[in-house]
Amino acid sequence: MNDASRSLGDRAQAMIDALATITAEPGKLTRLYLTGEHREAARLVGEWMRRAGMSVRMDAAGTMHGLLPAGREGPDSRRRLLIGSHIDTVVDAGRYDGTLGVIAGILAVEELRDRAVPLPFAIEILAFGDEEGVRFPKTLIGSSTVSGALGDAMLELTDETGVTIRDALLKFGGDPDALADEAYVRGTVLGYLEVHIEQGPVLDQAGQPLGVVSAIASQGRYRLSIKGEAGHAGTVPMQTRHDALVAAAQVILAIEEVAMKHARASCVATVGEIKAMPGTSNVIPGLVEFSLDLRASTDDARSAAASEIRRRIRDVGVRRGVLVGMETMHEKPVATCAPRLKRAVSLAIERVTGSRPLELMSGAGHDGQAMVNLTDIGMMFVRCRAGISHNPLESVEREDMDLAIRALVATIEVIADEHSGADR
Amino acid sequence: MNDASRSLGDRAQAMIDALATITAEPGKLTRLYLTGEHREAARLVGEWMRRAGMSVRMDAAGTMHGLLPAGREGPDSRRRLLIGSHIDTVVDAGRYDGTLGVIAGILAVEELRDRAVPLPFAIEILAFGDEEGVRFPKTLIGSSTVSGALGDAMLELTDETGVTIRDALLKFGGDPDALADEAYVRGTVLGYLEVHIEQGPVLDQAGQPLGVVSAIASQGRYRLSIKGEAGHAGTVPMQTRHDALVAAAQVILAIEEVAMKHARASCVATVGEIKAMPGTSNVIPGLVEFSLDLRASTDDARSAAASEIRRRIRDVGVRRGVLVGMETMHEKPVATCAPRLKRAVSLAIERVTGSRPLELMSGAGHDGQAMVNLTDIGMMFVRCRAGISHNPLESVEREDMDLAIRALVATIEVIADEHSGADR
Repeated sequence: MNDASRSLGDRAQAMIDALATITAEPGKLTRLYLTGEHREAARLVGEWMRRAGMSVRMDAAGTMHGLLPAGREGPDSRRRLLIGSHIDTVVDAGRYDGTLGVIAGILAVEELRDRAVPLPFAIEILAFGDEEGVRFPKTLIGSSTVSGALGDAMLELTDETGVTIRDALLKFGGDPDALADEAYVRGTVLGYLEVHIEQGPVLDQAGQPLGVVSAIASQGRYRLSIKGEAGHAGTVPMQTRHDALVAAAQVILAIEEVAMKHARASCVATVGEIKAMPGTSNVIPGLVEFSLDLRASTDDARSAAASEIRRRIRDVGVRRGVLVGMETMHEKPVATCAPRLKRAVSLAIERVTGSRPLELMSGAGHDGQAMVNLTDIGMMFVRCRAGISHNPLESVEREDMDLAIRALVATIEVIADEHSGADR
Repeated sequence: MNDASRSLGDRAQAMIDALATITAEPGKLTRLYLTGEHREAARLVGEWMRRAGMSVRMDAAGTMHGLLPAGREGPDSRRRLLIGSHIDTVVDAGRYDGTLGVIAGILAVEELRDRAVPLPFAIEILAFGDEEGVRFPKTLIGSSTVSGALGDAMLELTDETGVTIRDALLKFGGDPDALADEAYVRGTVLGYLEVHIEQGPVLDQAGQPLGVVSAIASQGRYRLSIKGEAGHAGTVPMQTRHDALVAAAQVILAIEEVAMKHARASCVATVGEIKAMPGTSNVIPGLVEFSLDLRASTDDARSAAASEIRRRIRDVGVRRGVLVGMETMHEKPVATCAPRLKRAVSLAIERVTGSRPLELMSGAGHDGQAMVNLTDIGMMFVRCRAGISHNPLESVEREDMDLAIRALVATIEVIADEHSGADR
């Protein structure tokens, strides 16, 4: 495989384009966990890993592992630096989300091998099969498995067609009963690195190709409901109405206000789903249900914002004579990037770009949220055009990918130097 | 048919219960225009009309006509006082909406016949088949046909399954090509009376069994849209968002405010339908579409409110950087009840209840909106429990129905007196 004459960016683009052809829907990119497309993508990724000199295995959850042993004996030669991301996609996805991180890892290993740099530790590239959580009502299955953070009772969850995760795993060639055995032993792991597109507009607006991630946001998902009184749109005077949708409108504006108030903690709040019932133009809505997605750079800020929203919705309930509810669907604590890995990523970016990178919070969720249960995490963001993601228009410059892979190599070198004691 | 020993209220209840058994869905009342249920209900109503001494015919639009000729010769003996309402229902309906008016007409005719009061004019009872507009995207087909207000190009409108009104009419036994011939000649009609449940809470709250209607509200239906910018719920800072749903929330509150401001003109505004797209909890809504139903006691007030809402939505558009639209779906002018018929209804109610009735606007639409194109209209409202309608919980007291039918008889007598010159 001697296309070393091509830039890393060009090679990454070619690999990303190859993966993008593996889809459930012609003309669109859709590749869900444990499907035929996933198997095909995993096979291709495994082939690339092997060609880069790694020994390859698929684990019980369908994650592809590519292992490059340490280049020299030493205290850390049995330990592994993990580098990963995911190869599943959302429906009608962009091609860089997840795949760029896996491919950056593989190309970084090739680069290190070609340079014949003997590393004091092993590197293991991980290609997770489920980060998006589209097929099953569960996310981060691959990374939760290797980090030992997988909850019980998830095997019986089903997809839309009624297939359980257990059956899908069996059909895929995984092993539902061996998931617990896949967890790494803590001391054997040096950390987890991930390169990912930003999926937001910050780097693009700042004109920076790469950024270092400070943390993956604290996240909460809630289901809000307002029960008013349905009635005829023509016959109930305004003064006597208990219109659930007008009340919901007031709550939606209050949510925006609360998020704005916590802007310093990068707080963002989104009502993405709303349903007014009965939902006909000539009936006053008697029941409105809506979602709330709330994120912030600290758990405290997120929980303060949630409490404030809870108070505001109660106020609206009292004022308008409607019954309100706010149910927590899930809450994920902040996943803070380890200072030592943040520093390594930052130094590496500076080395390849010549300037200190921006530090930014990841509002989006990532495999690091699971991996942080096992080990230190570090993340590098790559600029994507206009911040567009989860969309076929998702776009990353080859030059930026080139820089990202070189910065990943440099990150590994910085960490290697630390572990050799040379950089202390 | 000698159940004259039973009260008019009891007899009305028995007939209403009999009609309520004719439904498309067991356990629910659903009877749409030109269905088998409609045919069966029309047949039963026709039988009742015949037993009350009327000659019966079904017209080209499926409306049942029961004619009681004048009881004595005179200048008006060839003219008709029309009394009607509808026998179609919404889905999962109450049993009184519409049917009460038809049955009140039939029982009033029986009552007049039994009293052997010779009327100076004919009475024609009309049982329209389509007031609700549930099956086809068109309302008031029956009353528009007899009033000559039926627009062109409605025959090719289709129901959900693709059946055109033309084909449904043919299958029902109607005649799509003879609709225009069914319009009454103006001079042959003395007026149109309708008894209907209020479908609102005003009479119930005032403790009054009957009310006289001043007008059927001016009505507009609009479709509003807001186009913002979709984005990842976690990665787009609040300050740079163009969230279409937050903008819509602001518009919904503005709509309430505008309606409140026009409360003196009985203005009511309702957003009953709303759709946020793409509609997933972790994506900022990029497009929101919602309905607006706007009514008031005058066309001026309704159009002033609509203009104000249009201005407010434009303001929101500018302020939030979103594209806004407000499209008029239809506008129906106010249908004012004729002073002479309002006076007759009012006098009649006073005669049977002993007190002057409340005068109220009808926020709901009625066949009178079509009939006003042909002749003077007058309406009597009957109290329904808590104003609940379009709902199986719709409920009317037998005593109130009894009063309503007696007041309808009295109304006819008042009009008869006027036409005899006796009451001048």
